[in-house]
Formats: sequence, C-alpha cells, structure tokens
Amino acid sequence: MNRIEHIGIAVNSIEVAGDVYAKLLNTGVYKIEEVISEGVKTAFLQSGPNKIELLEATNADSPIAKFIAKKGEGIHHIAFDVTDIKAEMERLKAEGFILLNEEPKPGADNKLVCFVHPKSANGVLVELCQEVQ
Amino acid sequence: MNRIEHIGIAVNSIEVAGDVYAKLLNTGVYKIEEVISEGVKTAFLQSGPNKIELLEATNADSPIAKFIAKKGEGIHHIAFDVTDIKAEMERLKAEGFILLNEEPKPGADNKLVCFVHPKSANGVLVELCQEVQ
Repeated sequence: MNRIEHIGIAVNSIEVAGDVYAKLLNTGVYKIEEVISEGVKTAFLQSGPNKIELLEATNADSPIAKFIAKKGEGIHHIAFDVTDIKAEMERLKAEGFILLNEEPKPGADNKLVCFVHPKSANGVLVELCQEVQ
Repeated sequence: MNRIEHIGIAVNSIEVAGDVYAKLLNTGVYKIEEVISEGVKTAFLQSGPNKIELLEATNADSPIAKFIAKKGEGIHHIAFDVTDIKAEMERLKAEGFILLNEEPKPGADNKLVCFVHPKSANGVLVELCQEVQ
C-alpha cells in the first residue's frame, strides 16, 4: 500500500458537491468520468498526492444510490494505491480478508481495482487500486 | 490543503483494530496516544505520505462512543494538512463553511486542529490540522 490514492464520497449531485469541495480544497474539479458498469458518475479533485472522488449514482440499482438511501451522503470508501494488485489481493486473502471481487476489475481514473469487505476492516470499505500503464 | 494528513476510523478497540490494519497496510502501529480532552485513545499507522488514525472512546461521553452507538465502527473523519490553520479557518468561514471550533485546539500527534461541520461538506466531518513546530 503506497499511499491513500483517494477517498470516495457518496453525494446526491457531483455538480453541487463539486462546487463545495472546490471551495473546501481551494482547487477545482479536474476530471468527470462515468463508470457505467458501477452505475456512477465521478468527479475528481486533487489534494497534494491524494484525490477526492465524488460519486453520484446514475441509476437506482447503483451501490451509491443504495448507500445514500441507507446512510445519507458521506464517505463511501478509502482507496489505497498498490503497485501489484494481484500480489496484494493474494497477500490479503492469505491474511483472512474477504475480497469482493476475485479478479481485478476496471475502475474510474484508469485503474484496476478490488474491494475488501467492510466486515474485514472495522466497517470500512477498502479499495485497492493499481494504475494501468 | 496540502494533502490528506490522515483518515480517522472509529473502532471499539485500537488493540484489535490495530492488528487488522497492520495486516491490511502491511506495517505496524507506530504510535499510541491518548487525547484526554477528546475522550479518545488513538493508534497511528503510516501509508506513504498519509496516516490512518484508529480512535477508541475512553468514556461514554466521547464523540467516538456516540458515533459508534449510532453508526457502528467506520470512517469518522478526513483530516487535511494545512500550513496556516488560522488562515484556512478564515478562508473557509468566508466561503460559508461552519467551523466547530472558533480557535485552533490541540489534537493528537502534535497538531493544532479545527473541525468543519459535516453539514457543510456533504455529510463528511472534515478536520484541518497544522503540525506544531
């Protein structure tokens, strides 16, 4: 785990929340991207070596729609940058962590990603992400 | 806002969660510290330029005890490193953010801190922190 790559925040509208976080971080949204397979639109802001990823559901079945219906807007996940996602997945499985996908899958921002079950990590949804070269 | 300084995670036991996060991050807890004024014991782990701060309540009135009673274990706040906390507090107030303390106050890990109300930031409790020289 090289660093916190980003914090994912579930919001009702990336346009509205994008303005809020632009003021908070004193820097604008630099990228908007839709991940159709996950049912989300994402907006990214930079904070030094880290990013904030705002997540808006694009349909009612989206994990983000379900999260907001249950808990309201708020922090959805922490993503850690990894150099070799397959090796990290094997290491974590061997340590007893429950992975939510057996193979790395494409995520936003040109990444391969894998999620770790919140039950494995004191209620925190953890994402591993590896930059695709 | 220079970077994500740390993510604060509310847990029932920093000893138990410390073992989990040591496995997750593949690095041990490097510091345990009690902040009596906040009613918490904290444990820190490093991830590159960022930290994970595990937070355990030391009494029933602790904000962490109340958080866990309401929501269970999970992410409690995001802290951003700032160079001049007073200037950032002024800037955010002028932008309409609600600050939870009017003056910087001492936090864990040799920091001056200020919290921003979650209502100001899409349900996210945001902390500003400045390293004390």
